[in-house]
Amino acid sequence: MTQDVQNPWHMTALTLFPDAFPGVLDVSVIGAAQKNHIWTSDVVDIRDFSSNKHRSVDDTPAGGGPGMVLRADVAGKAIESVARNGRPLIYLTPRGAPLTQKRVRELATGPGVIVFCGRFEGLDERVIDAYEMEEVCIGDFVLAGGEIAAQALVEACVRLLPGVLGAADSTVDESFEDGLLEYPLYAKPAKWNGRTIPDVLRSGNHKAIADWRKDKQIETTKARRPDLYKAYMRKTGDGK
Amino acid sequence: MTQDVQNPWHMTALTLFPDAFPGVLDVSVIGAAQKNHIWTSDVVDIRDFSSNKHRSVDDTPAGGGPGMVLRADVAGKAIESVARNGRPLIYLTPRGAPLTQKRVRELATGPGVIVFCGRFEGLDERVIDAYEMEEVCIGDFVLAGGEIAAQALVEACVRLLPGVLGAADSTVDESFEDGLLEYPLYAKPAKWNGRTIPDVLRSGNHKAIADWRKDKQIETTKARRPDLYKAYMRKTGDGK
Repeated sequence: MTQDVQNPWHMTALTLFPDAFPGVLDVSVIGAAQKNHIWTSDVVDIRDFSSNKHRSVDDTPAGGGPGMVLRADVAGKAIESVARNGRPLIYLTPRGAPLTQKRVRELATGPGVIVFCGRFEGLDERVIDAYEMEEVCIGDFVLAGGEIAAQALVEACVRLLPGVLGAADSTVDESFEDGLLEYPLYAKPAKWNGRTIPDVLRSGNHKAIADWRKDKQIETTKARRPDLYKAYMRKTGDGK
Repeated sequence: MTQDVQNPWHMTALTLFPDAFPGVLDVSVIGAAQKNHIWTSDVVDIRDFSSNKHRSVDDTPAGGGPGMVLRADVAGKAIESVARNGRPLIYLTPRGAPLTQKRVRELATGPGVIVFCGRFEGLDERVIDAYEMEEVCIGDFVLAGGEIAAQALVEACVRLLPGVLGAADSTVDESFEDGLLEYPLYAKPAKWNGRTIPDVLRSGNHKAIADWRKDKQIETTKARRPDLYKAYMRKTGDGK
């Protein structure tokens, strides 16, 4: 890990809606971690880089079509205003590569991220090319803008930084880390609403508990995520 | 569409961090749509349903293991406090089915959603079973809690409600809607940073522009999303 007190993990967000930040990033363990300087952030208003008095930042798509395009000259100036400091420049877009927990781990061990939050129909492609932006998609659905996607990416990274989660909150034994979804969880009360906790979990037999959980992981993954299940089977040859 | 002025699309969020709302949902077209009563929302603090004076809501997992589990009795009381009104009860969790634009469209045409934002290691499985919660995952990464995921889902739905986006902002001609990622966009200035707009887009030849864009859609999808590309090829038999 490269984080230290002098150089905490740093997020810069470029957005047309600076009020969207910190948003969810201000609460709970993520908010506390920023107050404790485990990570830091700043927000750049893309509109400040408009070159006209109307502060407009968009124009119609070349070749026609619906919506408006965020102009290359405006976006370029906004990007140039940010000190890169070895951080990847990430553009949140439904056209991007799907974000994975593996990529989140890589980003968390680096110096931080610059997140560019798109709006309108999209960003002029020349900006993406010129700055070698990393196009990232958080899921197969369309948002009104990149702000929520950026916050999702940042929250996923920050929770992995040393000191953010307590020792009791493992980040290893969880969904996606071993290619399987997590096992079901139960806690007190032992009986709730006519429903009990599975006997095996109250048996004290650690081997039986581990086996039951692994079976449940495989069963759940097979039912809900055939893609992950197939990859897991290929990797492990585990025929359970 | 079932939305009308009397019964706008309604989100209820159940969360341990009510301050996380409205967050990003307060800005831009989504925030304006709430001010215009196209959609409405309320937030329920799960902690209000704790039955002890410490307001604790979690307990250790039955059978051992890391982290804490959100108790069934507390979560159950919080859920019972909400009028369902035909809305699906959605639990945001990495164990869920991936959210798709198709599911977003379905949710947007219904009366609204109840979103349950998990925290800790997870929620007691009996609650998920008892209330037939729909488990939804926004992507293959792990967040600190379900709040950002819930906001992503709600933003994706709200932008599709009638009157939220302007007529110029098509929601049909975009990524995922036809199984392909979107084509690259360009706008003025014609020359930026030594880079020009592809000639075809300035040709005025509508057929050539449409063909170029379709080719780019297929090329980008093939490179970045082999899963979508394969599904598209199966569906269309389009050999381009």
